[in-house]
Amino acid sequence: MPEQTEMPDAAQPDSPYAQLLAELRELAVLNSINSTLGWDQEVVMPPAAAALRGEQAAVLSTLIHDRRTSTRMGDLIAACKADAELKADPETDANLRRLRRDYDRAVRQPTELVREIAEVSTLAMHHWKDAREAGDFGAFAPWLEQLVKLNRDTADALGVPEGGEVYDALLENFEPGMRAAELDRVFGELRGGLVPLIRELRENGSRPDTEWMRIPLATEVQVAFNRSVVERMGFDFGAGRLDVSTHPFCEGAGPGDTRLTTRYEETELLSALHSTMHETGHGLYEQGLPKDRRFGQPLAEAASMGIHESQSRMWENFVGRSRPFWEWALPELKRHVGDGAVSGLDVDTVFRGLNVVEPDLIRIESDEATYNLHIMLRFDLERAMLRGDLSVADLPGVWNERMKSDLGLDVPSAREGVLQDIHWSMGAIGYFPTYTLGNLYAAQLWDALRVDLPDLDDQLRRGEFGGLLGWLRSHVHVHGRRYTAPELCERATGRPLSHEPLLRYLEGKLRPVYGLV
Amino acid sequence: MPEQTEMPDAAQPDSPYAQLLAELRELAVLNSINSTLGWDQEVVMPPAAAALRGEQAAVLSTLIHDRRTSTRMGDLIAACKADAELKADPETDANLRRLRRDYDRAVRQPTELVREIAEVSTLAMHHWKDAREAGDFGAFAPWLEQLVKLNRDTADALGVPEGGEVYDALLENFEPGMRAAELDRVFGELRGGLVPLIRELRENGSRPDTEWMRIPLATEVQVAFNRSVVERMGFDFGAGRLDVSTHPFCEGAGPGDTRLTTRYEETELLSALHSTMHETGHGLYEQGLPKDRRFGQPLAEAASMGIHESQSRMWENFVGRSRPFWEWALPELKRHVGDGAVSGLDVDTVFRGLNVVEPDLIRIESDEATYNLHIMLRFDLERAMLRGDLSVADLPGVWNERMKSDLGLDVPSAREGVLQDIHWSMGAIGYFPTYTLGNLYAAQLWDALRVDLPDLDDQLRRGEFGGLLGWLRSHVHVHGRRYTAPELCERATGRPLSHEPLLRYLEGKLRPVYGLV
Repeated sequence: MPEQTEMPDAAQPDSPYAQLLAELRELAVLNSINSTLGWDQEVVMPPAAAALRGEQAAVLSTLIHDRRTSTRMGDLIAACKADAELKADPETDANLRRLRRDYDRAVRQPTELVREIAEVSTLAMHHWKDAREAGDFGAFAPWLEQLVKLNRDTADALGVPEGGEVYDALLENFEPGMRAAELDRVFGELRGGLVPLIRELRENGSRPDTEWMRIPLATEVQVAFNRSVVERMGFDFGAGRLDVSTHPFCEGAGPGDTRLTTRYEETELLSALHSTMHETGHGLYEQGLPKDRRFGQPLAEAASMGIHESQSRMWENFVGRSRPFWEWALPELKRHVGDGAVSGLDVDTVFRGLNVVEPDLIRIESDEATYNLHIMLRFDLERAMLRGDLSVADLPGVWNERMKSDLGLDVPSAREGVLQDIHWSMGAIGYFPTYTLGNLYAAQLWDALRVDLPDLDDQLRRGEFGGLLGWLRSHVHVHGRRYTAPELCERATGRPLSHEPLLRYLEGKLRPVYGLV
Repeated sequence: MPEQTEMPDAAQPDSPYAQLLAELRELAVLNSINSTLGWDQEVVMPPAAAALRGEQAAVLSTLIHDRRTSTRMGDLIAACKADAELKADPETDANLRRLRRDYDRAVRQPTELVREIAEVSTLAMHHWKDAREAGDFGAFAPWLEQLVKLNRDTADALGVPEGGEVYDALLENFEPGMRAAELDRVFGELRGGLVPLIRELRENGSRPDTEWMRIPLATEVQVAFNRSVVERMGFDFGAGRLDVSTHPFCEGAGPGDTRLTTRYEETELLSALHSTMHETGHGLYEQGLPKDRRFGQPLAEAASMGIHESQSRMWENFVGRSRPFWEWALPELKRHVGDGAVSGLDVDTVFRGLNVVEPDLIRIESDEATYNLHIMLRFDLERAMLRGDLSVADLPGVWNERMKSDLGLDVPSAREGVLQDIHWSMGAIGYFPTYTLGNLYAAQLWDALRVDLPDLDDQLRRGEFGGLLGWLRSHVHVHGRRYTAPELCERATGRPLSHEPLLRYLEGKLRPVYGLV
């Protein structure tokens, strides 16, 4: 293998920094193996191989954990941090600061606690599936209680950031540098504008037609159309794939290997497209990270889950539900379908139909606007549970009240309510807010890039995505984790995170869709 | 993960034997990861991921090698070997004897030599590809010289078995317990019968029609037909897959995960079938090894490459080119094809056409009879090179002479001659004979199982393969590496390896095919 790791001049072949980079690369290679096995499991693995796959993951995870938390790793980081020459290079300095932080957090978590969470969540996921099926929250409650407690223990072990609260210790796992109080503020402002907007659309607007979505389309035609869009967006199929899985995902295993999945329903004309564009947004970010030179280093990793989600949401919604995009995409779709089944469709019908706002009990079925209310609900409730302000027993009641007051919906059963998501059963607390952060960052980046690309709409009308992708590459992808998400946002857009761009974007798009001025 | 490792009563949870079994299982899990990555590489990997895959394989191989040759492993084996109670259990005793042998061989190979062979063969394969393309043996000769020398060094390091020759040290890698002198004897006897048989068929027989093979068939129909045959043969698709790759192979990664590949040509009616049946033969062996209980132990591994090949050849040729099989398979094929394209075909035409004997320059294009002459040629030449009786420079001349005298063919270029196979460029010497050993073992097993299954032909005529598979399971698969291949042969068939069953089988089938009595 050629040694592709880039080193500053200060790093001699046997220097601590060179040794550290070599160790990081091997760790990343081990992680990439886990990623490839994960893809295999979801896409091609024979059912009977599940137990073997579990053993493989366990062996690899132990190897990886031991090396991530080794004394040698700690010593190498300390030696490098003490080197003034390394500190003088801003990129290297950023690399080392991120490594120090990751290492400190990794060693702070007692191995026993990590193992207990893994064991309990494996069982909890199992019980959650049955409980959801039966709509029986009581059967899941004891597991959730355990997981909330274990998350509190984890937060204690990790330590609460200065001036923060217990939730912040967990939020750091997904959104380094973000704080619950800041989320609370931005989410509150967004909510203040969203709730009346949604009400006005539904009370005074005219609901777009969505019947056309039920035009059936053979899977192989959908596959070809989806693939052509993904390719056009700039995804490199020489360094990636697009396959089918039950739950769509994107796996960026390492340099040259980024894999997307989607799923098709023959009864729906565009069943897969937006999910495919979403995953492609993730995939373009993975392909844009500087992994060729820096695989294994923080500088080649995503800034945060929220920034990752901003990339997927931008392509899915800001592009994929825009009128200019459909001026290019509808003729493309007609060309793929061939026969007359969609010849009567026009851009206006498709654009308006794709932007219907309709409160739904299920988060993942929700539109661009109401989706954020689902997230705020989850953020508020998990934060309250962690604080001890909300007991697990009271959770379904509070959930149902909030669904009524926020979205006007009665929750018929826990299956369509508090049990709908897998996240808590996996022991993940602090993850949900990254979804709305993705929307917020996407809107704010969209505002900024439209200033730099004044003819973006014309480019989209021609199916030209290179200008957009190029901007994202140079303003977001290339930096990896050099900056935290809040820093990156401010650098790329000139201002700190705000609710305004997202609200303005939704108002500007949805009011005309509903015939309001 | 449930602990599925079976232990004799003597093995207490913390006993050396229990520790040894746990270590072996983890090693097997690491190996299985390499297998899955290997499958991925050949079947689905994006081209740009090749470098990452190389790094993954290197990291894993180092981990595996270090643990296979660790002092701890040696100590555990020694402690178990010294335990009289363990020795008293015949299966455990066999397990320990194989482990001792494997360990001794692994530690005897200097790490430097292993690395040098890996490096040289990587380059040699590259140069071999170019040299073959150009038909330029001179461009490959220096690499082959190095590889022959490195193989001689390896043989020296491994040690020549008592009473054997240098070739035997390498043959042990693929066919434990077999000796070059024994191969020489059996091959010689086979050759003594084969050469006149082939001559007579071609000079006095009437060549069957093969024009029908060129009936085209759409890939999707071939896929469905092949899959139905594989399923009918008894391959468990819940614990395996059938995909497409450039070079067909079978990867038995571990319990519940055995994957086959094949390839299709739309211009040929049965382009994939025999290759598919061949790989399925390997796959049925892998699925029949007792991996559920003993994964990682020699008792769950294949006895030898020759025995593995006997399973693939039996299904490919003894079944797949037999008349009874086609009495079932031809109606099946017609049912899959549907339209009239094959309605005129009859069993006799297909059976005879599939058994044409025709000397071919290319080994892998050769028929059941002449194929063995290709193998004998390679065995004789690689053995002579290793001994120092044949120089690399003289190799093409000797090759071409032998092709003329054995098969009556003039070799137009090294591309169709000495450069056609990848094996030597990979540094593999001692592998070729396992192909003809597979044919020999298959014939001898076939003789024995027909005694136990007197109505086998009727079963095949009905497409019932359970009787055959059951016999192979209980006489071959279930034993793993408990016996060496020669021991297993004698146990399953009641006599030592002989050329007679194969020769008798070929004469009995081919003379009537050619209209001779």
